Amino acid sequence: MLAEIITIGDELLIGQVIDTNSAFIAQTLNKIGASVYQITSVQDERTHILQALKDAESRVDIIIITGGLGPTKDDITKKTIAEYFNDTLVRDAGVTKNIETLWKKYVRQTLLQMNKDQALVPSKAMVLMNELGTAPGMWLDKGKKTFVSLPGVPFEMKKLLVNKVIPKLKEKYKFPFILHTTLLTYGLGESTLAKRIEAWEDALPETIKLAYMPKLGSVRLRLTSKGFSEQEVRQNIETQVEKVLPLIKDAFVGFEDEAKSLEELIANRLTALGKTLAIAESCTGGDLAEQFTRNAGASAYFNGGVVTYATASKVRVLGVPEHVIKKYSVVSAEVVETMAKNVRELFDADYGVATTGNAGPLKGDSNAEVGTVFIAIASKGNVVSQSFMLGAARKRVIKKAVNKALEMLEKEILKN
Amino acid sequence: MLAEIITIGDELLIGQVIDTNSAFIAQTLNKIGASVYQITSVQDERTHILQALKDAESRVDIIIITGGLGPTKDDITKKTIAEYFNDTLVRDAGVTKNIETLWKKYVRQTLLQMNKDQALVPSKAMVLMNELGTAPGMWLDKGKKTFVSLPGVPFEMKKLLVNKVIPKLKEKYKFPFILHTTLLTYGLGESTLAKRIEAWEDALPETIKLAYMPKLGSVRLRLTSKGFSEQEVRQNIETQVEKVLPLIKDAFVGFEDEAKSLEELIANRLTALGKTLAIAESCTGGDLAEQFTRNAGASAYFNGGVVTYATASKVRVLGVPEHVIKKYSVVSAEVVETMAKNVRELFDADYGVATTGNAGPLKGDSNAEVGTVFIAIASKGNVVSQSFMLGAARKRVIKKAVNKALEMLEKEILKN
Repeated sequence: MLAEIITIGDELLIGQVIDTNSAFIAQTLNKIGASVYQITSVQDERTHILQALKDAESRVDIIIITGGLGPTKDDITKKTIAEYFNDTLVRDAGVTKNIETLWKKYVRQTLLQMNKDQALVPSKAMVLMNELGTAPGMWLDKGKKTFVSLPGVPFEMKKLLVNKVIPKLKEKYKFPFILHTTLLTYGLGESTLAKRIEAWEDALPETIKLAYMPKLGSVRLRLTSKGFSEQEVRQNIETQVEKVLPLIKDAFVGFEDEAKSLEELIANRLTALGKTLAIAESCTGGDLAEQFTRNAGASAYFNGGVVTYATASKVRVLGVPEHVIKKYSVVSAEVVETMAKNVRELFDADYGVATTGNAGPLKGDSNAEVGTVFIAIASKGNVVSQSFMLGAARKRVIKKAVNKALEMLEKEILKN
Repeated sequence: MLAEIITIGDELLIGQVIDTNSAFIAQTLNKIGASVYQITSVQDERTHILQALKDAESRVDIIIITGGLGPTKDDITKKTIAEYFNDTLVRDAGVTKNIETLWKKYVRQTLLQMNKDQALVPSKAMVLMNELGTAPGMWLDKGKKTFVSLPGVPFEMKKLLVNKVIPKLKEKYKFPFILHTTLLTYGLGESTLAKRIEAWEDALPETIKLAYMPKLGSVRLRLTSKGFSEQEVRQNIETQVEKVLPLIKDAFVGFEDEAKSLEELIANRLTALGKTLAIAESCTGGDLAEQFTRNAGASAYFNGGVVTYATASKVRVLGVPEHVIKKYSVVSAEVVETMAKNVRELFDADYGVATTGNAGPLKGDSNAEVGTVFIAIASKGNVVSQSFMLGAARKRVIKKAVNKALEMLEKEILKN
């Protein structure tokens, strides 16, 4: 059972907007056993959309289309789909009512004709009511094939996909069971890891596909298997995981199923232990704190943090003694350890994490080479620090520093 | 002159990774006048890659391929491209040397056979040397058509594209001039904006394409024109911008050409004025500070910030009096104003920005409804605050609060 995602919008083709919808749709389809064969992005242009629909229909059974459903004149997806189905647009009473309700609740301005016309849908379409926006989702059957058109606004698309599209797909098709298990590793390079598990990889059965996903100091190993017996699929993967784990013990930090990332892993452990965290950031500038706070539940373990970007702030806010900064420079083990200890005390937390460094592009208040970063973790009566050389590209230095800090923090938490 | 981007990798089709490469490639091609007709993502699968290459060749002149060039066995792009060109892989001496150099400098471990084999390239390909990684870029001519294969690692791909591919494309083809001008507006809804500029939009000449891009409280209006006379294209766009600006004066905050976003606009203004900023965040959890620090040059105006997530931290770190919190609740105008004033003083800055609210999903230390956010801006002898109801979805509440804070801050800065 194959699917294709078609995302429509000039903004994608000129690179003004990154297509995040496709990844969400692909993930969600995968969970129910629908494999995405291709993702195609096309312009808001009639002949191109028609061609993309035709091509997709020749390749797959399920076609999920997003974008181009806005009220303004540049959006033409709806009328083009109607044309593809030799259909006309008719006004849907339910959608009209939904638009009026949304308008009253959130907009409180005159309902314009262009907003009212969002209730026009192809007569052959089944409406998927969008409670979060004025553009409805649409479901069109063509024999065994299915076309679904969803708005491009991510949160509207997500809710419609999960609540309306997925249940209907499960009714119409019988899907195999697909299982992806991803092992998160830190500290080994991709090829070193590959060499180490080579014999295991070569002996993998045909039913299991392996992928390496390297990213700034971490490599994710993904095992995928599918079949109509869920039990068998799970057993297949489990057998292989048991074989590979002992080979990568020193680098393995967890499964992506348990936690999507190291920060979620840490969040889960801190919450379970009832321990708290405070963060003092210089070169990472708030990015480290944001790793935690963007997920719900952060208030259970995250007491807070400071971004002491200017050297003077390290003195005023974190109480790093001026003579320490003068003697060792602001990018030093002594300063980062003091930051970690003091932020821990300031926020009355169990762990204090601190970063200081030079992310570039220019040398800052210290004379440290661009890419130099010191990271410290303070816990009760203890502080550890490490220095790193993380290259020259600002955003990568910041991201790598965030990853290193998470890695060090996780190791400290595991000690307890 | 049309281009197609083909991104290769199972991780894209199962939604494990968001394709950010395509947007960068599209942007970069657009700058030299190459229009991207389609973006296609396919699996690491031989027949599918061959088909995608064939389809793209039938549609466009320039085909940019990324991904699938790693050293591990799941990556098959290189040998599949060789097959498509009826070609064989040969060892390239320059790439071999590059790999050895990189290995000595960064890896300092035994060079494995799989790393050495990254120097194998199709004999018909011109190597695009990748100084940042072991996988070379490859350029293949097929008459007037061009195939370029680049590694999927974003920073390697970007450097190769900008430094090697673009100059060669400009040599081989004559491109038209494409100009996108994007007007950034805040505070008006998409349809209200559309209605207001309707007469202007309807009178737009054929040579100009208009697009609306709404996003959490802001709408971007993009005007696009292309032609072989740069002067004419610029004149066309300028004429229309001059006509539309008076219609949207109250909502217009700047051009995306000047600054990509409101935070860059603010950064530029603060730097020019020699003024500084400090931020106290509760519900936005570091996200607001990160808007500024992720861009270079932040140390010129960003003194620092605190994330006082726990109520106790607001008292301990920011000195918000407990009786104020008790009387008004932690989500209140009184608390957010005190936070803004105190963080301004703590960091000795010209402007203090503060957020407090409940991003959900649960009610926190206050009893405020999920989605309630208070934002304050303090400047010398002055503080203003506003409350907002920003919906129920955590990540959107945070993002909207960040946008609102930026909007309020910009207005305060403009007053001076």
